[in-house]
Amino acid sequence: MDQTITAALRRAAGHRQRFDDRFAAYFDSLTGPGGSALDGLGHGRFPARAVELLRDMSLRGGKRLRVAVLHEAAGLITRQPLPGLDEAAVAIELLQTHGLVHDDIIDGSAVRRGAPSVPQQYRDEHPDRPDTALGLAVLAGDLAAFLALRVLAAAEPPPERGAAMTAELAGVGATTVLGQFLDLERDFGPVPGTDFLHAVTEYKTTRYSLLTPLRLGLLAARVDPAPYDGELRRYATALGIANMLRDDWLDLFGDPATVGKSVGSDLRSGRRSYAVRALLTADTDAAGRELLARALGDPDADEETLDQVRALGRRHGVDRSLQAEAQRYAAEASAVAGDWYDRWQPDAVAFFHHLPAWTVTRDH
Amino acid sequence: MDQTITAALRRAAGHRQRFDDRFAAYFDSLTGPGGSALDGLGHGRFPARAVELLRDMSLRGGKRLRVAVLHEAAGLITRQPLPGLDEAAVAIELLQTHGLVHDDIIDGSAVRRGAPSVPQQYRDEHPDRPDTALGLAVLAGDLAAFLALRVLAAAEPPPERGAAMTAELAGVGATTVLGQFLDLERDFGPVPGTDFLHAVTEYKTTRYSLLTPLRLGLLAARVDPAPYDGELRRYATALGIANMLRDDWLDLFGDPATVGKSVGSDLRSGRRSYAVRALLTADTDAAGRELLARALGDPDADEETLDQVRALGRRHGVDRSLQAEAQRYAAEASAVAGDWYDRWQPDAVAFFHHLPAWTVTRDH
Repeated sequence: MDQTITAALRRAAGHRQRFDDRFAAYFDSLTGPGGSALDGLGHGRFPARAVELLRDMSLRGGKRLRVAVLHEAAGLITRQPLPGLDEAAVAIELLQTHGLVHDDIIDGSAVRRGAPSVPQQYRDEHPDRPDTALGLAVLAGDLAAFLALRVLAAAEPPPERGAAMTAELAGVGATTVLGQFLDLERDFGPVPGTDFLHAVTEYKTTRYSLLTPLRLGLLAARVDPAPYDGELRRYATALGIANMLRDDWLDLFGDPATVGKSVGSDLRSGRRSYAVRALLTADTDAAGRELLARALGDPDADEETLDQVRALGRRHGVDRSLQAEAQRYAAEASAVAGDWYDRWQPDAVAFFHHLPAWTVTRDH
Repeated sequence: MDQTITAALRRAAGHRQRFDDRFAAYFDSLTGPGGSALDGLGHGRFPARAVELLRDMSLRGGKRLRVAVLHEAAGLITRQPLPGLDEAAVAIELLQTHGLVHDDIIDGSAVRRGAPSVPQQYRDEHPDRPDTALGLAVLAGDLAAFLALRVLAAAEPPPERGAAMTAELAGVGATTVLGQFLDLERDFGPVPGTDFLHAVTEYKTTRYSLLTPLRLGLLAARVDPAPYDGELRRYATALGIANMLRDDWLDLFGDPATVGKSVGSDLRSGRRSYAVRALLTADTDAAGRELLARALGDPDADEETLDQVRALGRRHGVDRSLQAEAQRYAAEASAVAGDWYDRWQPDAVAFFHHLPAWTVTRDH
C-alpha cells in the first residue's frame, strides 16, 4: 500500500502545480481579448487594481487541498480530461479568495499568506481615506465571489451536468456564509458546546472544502452524486472535524518552526477553538482559571503566558484528548472511504482512504 | 396609443404586486421544510437573524422596475407562464439587496428605504462591538449575493436556457461590482469627464437593472438574445443614462415633497453626479466657485446654501441642459424600441417604447 500512498501524494502535488498555472492563466484571461475577458476592466484604475490584488493573494498559496479533492473525486470515475473540471477548481479557489478577503475585514487581519492582506493593502494605498479603503476591500471580496460563479457558469464547452455544478457552488456559497455567521456567534455568550463547534466546522469549512469538491468532481465525471450523498457527507463531516481539531491543536501545541505562522493566535484573539474550549472546560484550579481569563482575548499575551497555558493544557490531558479525538474522526472518515474500493477506481480511492491519517499527522 | 400606455402601466403595477408576494414566499421557503430550505439556518441565532434583516429590507420596497422589465421582456415573446421567470425576478432583486447592503457599508448610510439600514441595524444590536456589527453586515450582503445565484441555478423545473440565465446573472454580478469601483473612483482626483460618468452608469446600474432583465426575460421565453444584442445594449445604455440624469436632476432640483428623500444628498456627500459635474464645469464666477467649493462634500450644508446652489445652476442653464440631455437619451432609447413592433408582441413593445418618456418625467 505504501506505493499507492506515495503515488497519491505525488498526484496531489501535480494537481497543485497544474492548478497554479491554470489559476494564473485565468486571471490573465480577465484582462485579455477572449470570451472570458471582464468587460469594464478598461475603465478607470480601481477595477484593474482590484483584479491585481485578488490575483496576487490567490496565487500566494495554500495547499490547494480542495483542488486535489476535486480532481481525485473525478478520478474515482475516470482520469480522462473532463469539461468543467478545471473551471470548478478555479471557482472553488475563487470562493476561498472571496472568503479570505472578507474574513480579513471581519478579523481586522493585516497579514494574509505572508504579505499584507487585501484590506491592509487598500489601507496602505489610501492612508487618508479609511472608509474608502474599507469599501474597496468589501468590493474586492464581492468581485471574487461573482467571478467564482461566473467561471463555472460560463465554462466552455458546457459540462453535461453544468447546471447542477453551478447550483452546488451557489448553494455552498450561501452555506459558507452561514458558517461565518456561526463563527462570529461562537465567541459570544457562554462557552459553546462541542455540537456548536462541530456546526461551525461543518458550515464554515467542511462543506466548501470537502463536500462540494467531492460532488463537483463526480458531477464533472457525469455521475449523479445523490445516491452516494449519505456516505459523502459522513466522509466529509468526519474528515472536516479531524482536520479542524488538528488545526486547533497545531495553533496551541504546534511547533512555531513548522506551523509557519504565530502559534497561539486562537487564544490571543479569544477564538473558542476546539483547543480553547477544551482548556476552558478542563477541571482546572483557581490559578488555572485566572491564567486562562488573563490570556484569552489578549492580543499581547507573551510567550511565557502561552507556555504556562500549554503546560496547564498538558497537565489536564487537553493535548492528548484533542489528538485522540482527531484520530477517532480520521479513522471514521477512512473507514467510509475504505468501502469505495469495490465501486470506484482504486488509485483515487486510496487518496481518500489515506487522506484522513495524513491530515491529523501533518505538522503545518 | 393612450390605452396601450395605460395597459402597460397597469401590467407593471401587477408585476410588482405579484412579485412582492412571491418575494415574501421565497424568504419563507428558506426557513421551511422544502427543497429550497437553507441548511444551516437551524443553528445559533445569527444566521436566521441575517435572513430576517435581508427579508425586511428587501420587502420594504422600491419600484421593482427591474421586475417589470424582466416580465415585459418575456412578454415580447409570450404571456405564457415560463419556468425560471419568477426565480429570475427574485434573483435580480436579491442582487439588488446585496448591492444595497454593501453600499450602505461603503457610504456609511444609517437609513435605507425609510428604516435603519442593515449595517445600522447591526450597530444598534451590538452597540459595544462595532467590528462585529461591521462583519455581520458584510456577511449579510454576501449571503444575499449567493442566494441570488442559488435561487436561479436551482430553479425547478430547470428552464430550457437555465445555464445561460445563470451565467448572465453571475457575469452581471461581477460587472456591477466593477461599476461600484468606478463609482468610488469618480470622487477621486479631478472632475471626471462625461464619458467616465457614462461608464459608471453603464456598469453600476444599467447592466443589472436593464440589460440583464431584458436578456433573462428573452432567455426564459426560450429566445437566444445574442442576435439582438446590439439593439438591446443601445436601448439599455440610452435608457440607463436618461434614467440616471433624471435621478441626478431630481436630487438637486426635485421637489422634496415628491422625491421622498432629502434632496441635495449628492452635493452634501461630494458625489460627482451628472448634476454636480455640470455645476462644477459651468462657467461660474469666483463667488459661484466659492459657493460650490463650500457646499460640495459638506454633510451639514443647509437649505439656504442648497437654494443658492440651485439658483446658480438655473442661472447657468444646468437644470435645463440636464433635462434636455435626459430627453435626448430617452428619445434615442424609445426609437430603438419603436423598431420592435414588426417583430415582437405589440403590447410588450409598447411598454419599452414608452418607458423612456415615463422615466424622464417621473417626479420621484
